[in-house]
Amino acid sequence: MPETIRICVDAMGGDNAPAAPVQGAVDAVRLRNDIKIFLVGQEDVVSAELAKYEYPNDQIEVVNATEIIEMAEHPVNAIRKKKDSSMVVGMKMVRDKQADAFISAGSTGATLVGGQTIVGRIPGVKRPPLAPLLPTENGVSLLIDCGANVDARPGHLVTFAKMGSIYMKHIVGIENPRVAIVNIGTEEEKGNALVKETYPLLKECKDINFVGSIESREIPHGAADVIVCEAFTGNVILKLYEGLSQTLISVIKGGLMSTLKSKIGAALALPALKKTIKSFDASTYGGAPLLGLNGLVVKTHGNSKNTEIKNAIFQCVAFSENQINQKMKELLTADDGAEE
Amino acid sequence: MPETIRICVDAMGGDNAPAAPVQGAVDAVRLRNDIKIFLVGQEDVVSAELAKYEYPNDQIEVVNATEIIEMAEHPVNAIRKKKDSSMVVGMKMVRDKQADAFISAGSTGATLVGGQTIVGRIPGVKRPPLAPLLPTENGVSLLIDCGANVDARPGHLVTFAKMGSIYMKHIVGIENPRVAIVNIGTEEEKGNALVKETYPLLKECKDINFVGSIESREIPHGAADVIVCEAFTGNVILKLYEGLSQTLISVIKGGLMSTLKSKIGAALALPALKKTIKSFDASTYGGAPLLGLNGLVVKTHGNSKNTEIKNAIFQCVAFSENQINQKMKELLTADDGAEE
Repeated sequence: MPETIRICVDAMGGDNAPAAPVQGAVDAVRLRNDIKIFLVGQEDVVSAELAKYEYPNDQIEVVNATEIIEMAEHPVNAIRKKKDSSMVVGMKMVRDKQADAFISAGSTGATLVGGQTIVGRIPGVKRPPLAPLLPTENGVSLLIDCGANVDARPGHLVTFAKMGSIYMKHIVGIENPRVAIVNIGTEEEKGNALVKETYPLLKECKDINFVGSIESREIPHGAADVIVCEAFTGNVILKLYEGLSQTLISVIKGGLMSTLKSKIGAALALPALKKTIKSFDASTYGGAPLLGLNGLVVKTHGNSKNTEIKNAIFQCVAFSENQINQKMKELLTADDGAEE
Repeated sequence: MPETIRICVDAMGGDNAPAAPVQGAVDAVRLRNDIKIFLVGQEDVVSAELAKYEYPNDQIEVVNATEIIEMAEHPVNAIRKKKDSSMVVGMKMVRDKQADAFISAGSTGATLVGGQTIVGRIPGVKRPPLAPLLPTENGVSLLIDCGANVDARPGHLVTFAKMGSIYMKHIVGIENPRVAIVNIGTEEEKGNALVKETYPLLKECKDINFVGSIESREIPHGAADVIVCEAFTGNVILKLYEGLSQTLISVIKGGLMSTLKSKIGAALALPALKKTIKSFDASTYGGAPLLGLNGLVVKTHGNSKNTEIKNAIFQCVAFSENQINQKMKELLTADDGAEE
């Protein structure tokens, strides 16, 4: 029998807590018997929510944490002061090897700070990047980095490229993933100072399949598997991707409902359309992992529903089963070109 | 009778040249008798194309230019060496006050270089920004800058904010346009070094209506009228906006055609849907002006059709009629806080 994978879920994080994290955990343990979920949060609240469900009782355990980190709190202060918050308690369990991963739909800033300061970084990683999967025409691409550490240096981006390649190969199953750097043109001499410095380093790097620059218009076409960029740029891409998809889908729905004839057409077309729209729904792919830590931390959307939490749990399982961290450590410490 | 506005159109620029620029010019003069179009390009080719149409003959004149700047050419070299290209000849007419504006669907890089080196900048502008209109849920927003001058300094962004405000007020007709800076959060302390330095300068600036930071997800909702950013970020936003809109519309069309039932629905819904999609089509809004020059230079999409050229011509007319350059000069030279 394989080893049980242990995952902490922040039961107090996100707009739909505790309902969504609790239901997501229940959904997950109903499907797999080789996982154990720790629901971290205010014990009475979480237990009351959990009591609504039937599930294999030995697979879910409530871990008490009395405090809650709010979305508006300053991340560094929150992590430092709220020692008994669900986030700090859960991350400490990962640090102390009582759990393999931690999932939260709560404050992104606090998740990033906690990941670095509590869980800690693996050797060779100065900046753990946040790396969500973006839906594309033909599947998904990994956008790395879109976290909070802006103004990265070229060496950081090379590390992102290596970590992203491992993730896409072993989690998404893409052999020899194509790595590209976000740029404002495809010629080698194009770009800002950071891109111009990073480009030759990526080109020289033997551990990755570097295919050159990618213009943002090519991202939705799936023109690369690992999309490397500095966090400010990545954050702009991620949020525009999500915002524009939602807006266009809502505008198109509005268009479909604008005349009687189109309403009838919409009723007929809706099932097929829903399937299409679903393929562009980021929640299908779980959450964004914070890579390069001594353990895994996954950030899901603030408005995550149970499905996204469940998918994030399975993402953590795949990460653990495939020993991604071990593979990253080996790759990052093997070569002398370690990040400065 | 009002003064005639004179506009040069690059008849050799873009994927659909000379057909699209020629037809766009014809479309425009058929609608307005107070404009004169100079079609700049290889005289025999342009005249042959023009001969296909009936139009008020005194309103269109062919100006011979024997060379063509190709998309793949190095912009600086191309502008320097091809003295008899449609782009150089047309821009010189603007410089020499023989024309008020120049429109091209050709190389963006060459348009930017030519605009700065041939047409020249107005006092107080170090970096003429490229400022396209983005379609949003409730209209349009001006994205400024998405040109080629990356790694801008804070002072440049303040100038962009002022120029963009004048444009949106007098061309789009928005009183007291809301100015926002692209950021990765809405709190004042968020951002990269450039944004953190620029934020207080925009806040202090009395000539604009600064509303703070904007996250990229809010752009499609029309959360600001003037969206200020550094060119690398702007280029990423513009190209992702265009690429993702096209991809989603094509994916949704594919979804509509995927089953027999949905096909019937699609047939009924299509007229209403087309209208909706049209509202998110950038070509409706003409081209992207390069602001802050001694005259106006407008870049339209490489694949511009006659409609986009015609709309760009009317955009130039509005720019000229509203004396935008005069207003910009006054604002930029009036205050002591001129760009460093």
